[in-house]
Amino acid sequence: MAGYVSEAVIKRLPAYYRHLKELETEGVKQISSKGLGERMQLTASQIRQDINCFGGFGRQGYGYSVAGLREHIGRILGVDHTHAMIIIGGGNIGRAVALSDSFPANGFQTVAIFDNDQEKIGTGVGQLTIQDVSELKQYILENTVDIAVLAVPVSIAQELADELVTCGVAGFWNFAPIDLKLPEGISIVNVHLDEGLEILSFRMMQGLV
Amino acid sequence: MAGYVSEAVIKRLPAYYRHLKELETEGVKQISSKGLGERMQLTASQIRQDINCFGGFGRQGYGYSVAGLREHIGRILGVDHTHAMIIIGGGNIGRAVALSDSFPANGFQTVAIFDNDQEKIGTGVGQLTIQDVSELKQYILENTVDIAVLAVPVSIAQELADELVTCGVAGFWNFAPIDLKLPEGISIVNVHLDEGLEILSFRMMQGLV
Repeated sequence: MAGYVSEAVIKRLPAYYRHLKELETEGVKQISSKGLGERMQLTASQIRQDINCFGGFGRQGYGYSVAGLREHIGRILGVDHTHAMIIIGGGNIGRAVALSDSFPANGFQTVAIFDNDQEKIGTGVGQLTIQDVSELKQYILENTVDIAVLAVPVSIAQELADELVTCGVAGFWNFAPIDLKLPEGISIVNVHLDEGLEILSFRMMQGLV
Repeated sequence: MAGYVSEAVIKRLPAYYRHLKELETEGVKQISSKGLGERMQLTASQIRQDINCFGGFGRQGYGYSVAGLREHIGRILGVDHTHAMIIIGGGNIGRAVALSDSFPANGFQTVAIFDNDQEKIGTGVGQLTIQDVSELKQYILENTVDIAVLAVPVSIAQELADELVTCGVAGFWNFAPIDLKLPEGISIVNVHLDEGLEILSFRMMQGLV
């Protein structure tokens, strides 16, 4: 990658990736910055600047190779290889993540799901069976785990995250509405659904789009 | 509200609201910008600037009234009143939203859920029964609907959103991985779960936190 990439560009990477996958599906081989811009509601110059920023791909005047650019961005995002995910919490959110088709289709494979509720332990979620959270450490010792999905109550989220970090988990997808404190080198993305709804409510109040 | 509020400040509003609710629960009555900053991992000066920005609340030197500031921010966010939500899509995500306790606790009340799958129609999701999507228009005519939750496949999301806009729905919480085109004055918040995972993968690759 070519040097510093701003947070704004990083946030657009998955959208580039999604649009390029769609274009591939549609059978489009080449696309100009203008064409991609129209599709993504960005200007052609913004597209050129972004793509320049993450590696100077493509040749001006010829447009971009859809497959080539999709692969290039896939490599940057690290979605050219599979990630093994474990889910902690067999409630509604945990189940929804475990049952999704689209995460495995993008290389994010749920390999195990844990809960501390005796009523849930041993029950099935798709192909998986909910395991006792007391077996979590042992599981991580014996299996490759890239990402832990936290779908647990706020009250236990920090303690659980600390334990998982100790076990060597370096990536967290956190659905608990809490700002987890994690050591340097550990990556986290929060999905604070409540906050999204509040932002929606705010925009509706302001009449903003 | 005091004039222009930047997108960055808007995005922090729900976090302020969440921390102030927690402080209230903990029985804290007053908090300084320093105290709130430490809690939110922001500087005291950032806190003062933010709060100044959304209304000049509080008196320097006395700290902020936790309940007062929580109420003030709640009014700005529009979460001081209830929002009626309908969910389109009775799959994993739609069900998880319908079954959540935290959305109704924050005033976002799911009042109906729809699907086009004959196997799902008539089945229960918590207190609700999945209705036939062919009854959607009639439902909106006869009931108050503030927010439509789109938990449907990409292929039908735009058409459905257009129909809902025609019926007068002005707020969308969209889980379909598509950039919907909506007319001016319609508010939308996207929850693109796949994109969150891709950003997480990227951060893990970069060793960024």
